[in-house]
Amino acid sequence: MAEMTDLSASAVLANFAASSVWDDVPAAVRHEGRRAVLNFFAVTLAAVRDPMLATMERIYVKFSSGEQATLIGRKQRSDPLTAAAINAMAANIHDFDDTHHPTIIHPSAPVASALFALAEARPMRGEQWLHAFLIGVEAACRIGRALSPGHYTRGWHVTSTCGVFGAAVGAACALNLDASRIVAALGCAAVQAGGLVEMLGTGAKSVSVGNAARNGLLSALLAAEGLDGPAQPLEGVRGYLRVAADAPDVNLIGAGLGTHWEIINNTYKPYPCGVVLNPVIDACLALTADRRIAKGAWRAIKHVELMGHPLLRQRTDRPGVGTGRQSQVSAQHAVAVTLLRGRAGLAEFSDEAVADPDVQELGQKLKFVDDDTCPVDAVWVTILFGDGTSLQHRVEAARGSLARPLQDVELEKKLRELCRYGGARVQSAHLIDAVWALEAAEDAGAVIRLASG
Amino acid sequence: MAEMTDLSASAVLANFAASSVWDDVPAAVRHEGRRAVLNFFAVTLAAVRDPMLATMERIYVKFSSGEQATLIGRKQRSDPLTAAAINAMAANIHDFDDTHHPTIIHPSAPVASALFALAEARPMRGEQWLHAFLIGVEAACRIGRALSPGHYTRGWHVTSTCGVFGAAVGAACALNLDASRIVAALGCAAVQAGGLVEMLGTGAKSVSVGNAARNGLLSALLAAEGLDGPAQPLEGVRGYLRVAADAPDVNLIGAGLGTHWEIINNTYKPYPCGVVLNPVIDACLALTADRRIAKGAWRAIKHVELMGHPLLRQRTDRPGVGTGRQSQVSAQHAVAVTLLRGRAGLAEFSDEAVADPDVQELGQKLKFVDDDTCPVDAVWVTILFGDGTSLQHRVEAARGSLARPLQDVELEKKLRELCRYGGARVQSAHLIDAVWALEAAEDAGAVIRLASG
Repeated sequence: MAEMTDLSASAVLANFAASSVWDDVPAAVRHEGRRAVLNFFAVTLAAVRDPMLATMERIYVKFSSGEQATLIGRKQRSDPLTAAAINAMAANIHDFDDTHHPTIIHPSAPVASALFALAEARPMRGEQWLHAFLIGVEAACRIGRALSPGHYTRGWHVTSTCGVFGAAVGAACALNLDASRIVAALGCAAVQAGGLVEMLGTGAKSVSVGNAARNGLLSALLAAEGLDGPAQPLEGVRGYLRVAADAPDVNLIGAGLGTHWEIINNTYKPYPCGVVLNPVIDACLALTADRRIAKGAWRAIKHVELMGHPLLRQRTDRPGVGTGRQSQVSAQHAVAVTLLRGRAGLAEFSDEAVADPDVQELGQKLKFVDDDTCPVDAVWVTILFGDGTSLQHRVEAARGSLARPLQDVELEKKLRELCRYGGARVQSAHLIDAVWALEAAEDAGAVIRLASG
Repeated sequence: MAEMTDLSASAVLANFAASSVWDDVPAAVRHEGRRAVLNFFAVTLAAVRDPMLATMERIYVKFSSGEQATLIGRKQRSDPLTAAAINAMAANIHDFDDTHHPTIIHPSAPVASALFALAEARPMRGEQWLHAFLIGVEAACRIGRALSPGHYTRGWHVTSTCGVFGAAVGAACALNLDASRIVAALGCAAVQAGGLVEMLGTGAKSVSVGNAARNGLLSALLAAEGLDGPAQPLEGVRGYLRVAADAPDVNLIGAGLGTHWEIINNTYKPYPCGVVLNPVIDACLALTADRRIAKGAWRAIKHVELMGHPLLRQRTDRPGVGTGRQSQVSAQHAVAVTLLRGRAGLAEFSDEAVADPDVQELGQKLKFVDDDTCPVDAVWVTILFGDGTSLQHRVEAARGSLARPLQDVELEKKLRELCRYGGARVQSAHLIDAVWALEAAEDAGAVIRLASG
């Protein structure tokens, strides 16, 4: 958009958000939006019985002013800000939500939660909702790219810090705010961006994910009411980009806006664990087809060798983990539980699975072999038996990666399984149909109401 | 506290907060706490009719779940989280609240707002309230010192970013949480610390000040409910200190805790403008005693010279400002309006005062003279008349500085004047008496109720 080069980044982004026309959004982008929403419902429905989420809900609902909005998987309802927070926390609590590359932002939790909450307070058509969602995701991911990599390596939790901008811009679009009001919403979001990598694996992480949705929506409501902010909340001398990253690339905010859509780089996990373990699990699942792994036969295994890029070892060499949450980043646990159970769902990364003595015993047989020449996405898994025989499987790119994206039917299956796992009384088939037809819905709020408990 | 050297900073701070005994708090520290609270009420009552605050209130009260808590200067009440946010925004909106040296944190707005809101939801004695307030201020200011100067110069708004920790620790103390729960509250606060210098002079700034109070209180409530966080939210490898400052000094968190109290470095402004302008205003007020300044005689002035440290010019050389808010950091405006009106209150830094053609004309006669050898706290003001005569006044340290603190009676006068300015129906005398007797109050919440409208 050459005509925008004389505008600064916040104005470029706001102008795009205010002037984007639905007919110009490519079909593939719209479809990826629907896929992201399907995955959002799947992972949020899985969290219904999570005890940490319940702890937070007890406090949050005390401060809810009304019942306009749906809490996914629950009968109870809340005001829109509270629903935005709780649904976003639920969506992200298992780290099973979508992942944008290369920022590693989980964009849907904050953006979809804010927009569904708004849609129940101010009814809007499905087309308007999906358009606002795509623009919100675009804002979060572009700000994330401008901040990368110096923001995440510094220790900021990008899903939280960038999510609040995405929720703000998405909600501002849904409210039909003009560009100057969207810049004001970005200003209100910039002072509410928070969240630290240090908190991963604890309840405190969820607080910032919930805030991203809640405070993004609040930012848009304040901007709509007339609250002002500075002209350059992102790129100003003391704007968010320079304050929160050491070498931000401001140009990435505007380059190719409307032509290249970041949601095309969004992926969906088949397994609820660190993305670097996904090819390992793929290989282990393939290996379980051999009868020598089945039942008690696994005791004949002498070693399991993981040959991969050194990053695999650095990030996942965690023997003896004590909780389900820690097991999500443990190769020892992931390999053992997958080989033993032939599955790798939420039940396999629970406290119960971690306590299984067979899983613990097999996990101790893992060995890492570093190979600098191995691509980060690939892995060789070799099982060596006591009798000198072996089995091998190589995976070049995991299921769920950009090279091998989950298919639509796989996302549908994920939703059905996770809905069962969570135990909410939701008609999965109706919800799936409604998400695929979201663009044509008269009332976007009716879609999330299908996911109430 | 030598026995604590083997603990890390978060645990040291939490242990202090959990184990501090009221009898060990020195009388001077307690009294400074009461002075801070008096100033807090004064500046908050001044904001009752502020239009920007009204814009925010319209949105915030929509999401209030109850009426447990007082909104200062108003009949309307709200839930505690909402009251914490609105009262903190009001306290800071004119930048007339207290200032801690050397961090330049305004500590009372977030900490007092959170604690009064809590005291109305969970009644507590005045002694317990004041103790929690002092510890909350201590936490905010010590974290600010550990982050300084690399945090503020990077662009973080320290009142907001450190205020959330102060509110969290203060509220955790008032809830009698143990040290491990206070560390959890610090973790919840660390992911909610936000606010940028870029926003100064706009409504977006108030959003983060309100959040500091609200989210600090929320952090304590979440910790009390059992939510967990990491062991080292402040000093961890990806903890807040290292993420948000380039060279934090972690030792400042614990050094001398309980012996040296940071509130002793708290100051209260006599004038509602940038602190660097305070000696200038003192000098101008002294000069107005001369009859040659009075009435129309000021037209005989040829120049007004400000001789001071170059920082004075760098921060305040702002001719032709357009709004009351901008005039708070304009030497041109401050000198002109003070010489013309013989006063320097909120009315003198309003849009109306800025629009006064006499003020604009006299402001154009200002000249800066840099003097590297001049202390930052000092200034020479020289008035040169057209007839060659001149008047001079030198100020070594401004009223309200640590060297010349406002006296108790001056704080009382400030409260009476600002209450009148705001127009709330509050019995100033009763409120002043209640603050001085806060330590002995049966119910701390009754004190803030004296400040309802």
